[in-house]
Amino acid sequence: MKRVLVYGGRGALGNACISHFKNSNWWVGNIDVSKSDQADANITVNPEESWVQQEASVVEALQQVLGGGGKVDAILCVAGGWAGGNAASKEMVKNADAMWRTSVWPSTVAAHLGAHFLNEGGMVAFCGAKAALEGTPGMIGYGMAKAAVHHLVKSLAAEKSGLPSAALPVAVCPVTLDTPMNRKFMPKADVSTWTPLFFVAELFHNWAEGKERPVPGSLIQLITKDGQTSLIPA
Amino acid sequence: MKRVLVYGGRGALGNACISHFKNSNWWVGNIDVSKSDQADANITVNPEESWVQQEASVVEALQQVLGGGGKVDAILCVAGGWAGGNAASKEMVKNADAMWRTSVWPSTVAAHLGAHFLNEGGMVAFCGAKAALEGTPGMIGYGMAKAAVHHLVKSLAAEKSGLPSAALPVAVCPVTLDTPMNRKFMPKADVSTWTPLFFVAELFHNWAEGKERPVPGSLIQLITKDGQTSLIPA
Repeated sequence: MKRVLVYGGRGALGNACISHFKNSNWWVGNIDVSKSDQADANITVNPEESWVQQEASVVEALQQVLGGGGKVDAILCVAGGWAGGNAASKEMVKNADAMWRTSVWPSTVAAHLGAHFLNEGGMVAFCGAKAALEGTPGMIGYGMAKAAVHHLVKSLAAEKSGLPSAALPVAVCPVTLDTPMNRKFMPKADVSTWTPLFFVAELFHNWAEGKERPVPGSLIQLITKDGQTSLIPA
Repeated sequence: MKRVLVYGGRGALGNACISHFKNSNWWVGNIDVSKSDQADANITVNPEESWVQQEASVVEALQQVLGGGGKVDAILCVAGGWAGGNAASKEMVKNADAMWRTSVWPSTVAAHLGAHFLNEGGMVAFCGAKAALEGTPGMIGYGMAKAAVHHLVKSLAAEKSGLPSAALPVAVCPVTLDTPMNRKFMPKADVSTWTPLFFVAELFHNWAEGKERPVPGSLIQLITKDGQTSLIPA
């Protein structure tokens, strides 16, 4: 049975990924601040811990869950969040800090897990953002965090990154995901341009199974129109 | 008398910038963990404080130094550091955290200062890195931090970033600066390809004076060969 770790499995996208991989008969490990009933194993992150502490805790817990030398076939880092603010905003630094913790901390730890727990030819997938492919003046902290995630993916695809051979580091760069939270906070938006969570989960599963894989290091924009999503490498 | 803030004025590049602006009859404010004897004013940062606390402390101290409504003509963020490590490295997260604190914290606070304390047409300059224009597999945390700084500059150059009108946000992207630390740790390197600190200080001063300014949002690579440095926009 193939194995996947979902970092952020309790978020909307994470939950969709866990369901899809379970339905496809994968073993699923959830890494998040709370447990997923669907997952085969749970590694609970303490959000009060520092970045370095969280990494050490997750590595230690994962070694126990997987047993000596145990590996996985895919790692999905789907943790994240959103906060706005331009340079004049009182909340700019506070929000930049929050974005760093919610996007970059888990992505960096996931990359480290990729180096130590991923099988050869495995996949480690991240969540970037189409908006952060350019400047993001109204959401500076968010853009910096996503730019860092994009850079991480490029670094992981380069030689001697520490990932096992033939591994696929990749990021999806959505515009807007069709999540319950986005529906709640943008009730009048045109949801036909939002990307369904199932689509992303299925995409990750296909790549994890080795189907239609993009080039390592790709930042794949998810462009949804009239409910149809196109994959466009940045 | 024109005024400049040097964030990281006790580093090698910061020290060179303070000297150069002082010699050019500018008022200089140093923001760093310790005081500069050359500076007209010092704002001391407590490195034990959080990112949000540091921002609040610096803003409060700067308001006192500049007086009610006081502004500056240029802000240079020359704080930074270096640490290596690929995804497999035990130190990866520790070093990524250190790079974030030394490069991204001050850069973000400097951007916020730009929104509130920079005169119209003023300059806010940052230190990026040529290496981080591509993946940096052997120094993942460093590359992520510098990629975030590059993104910050692009965001600041976009509309409604919060900077005053006609402001110039810009980053220099050196290969290697000719600092005492680099000479110490790379004693056998070819220093004719290293960029002299005086060159960078003079460049900042020219831009601050409105001379030969690049396009806002530029990432200017500093390519030094046989002791001569060329400016190449990325």
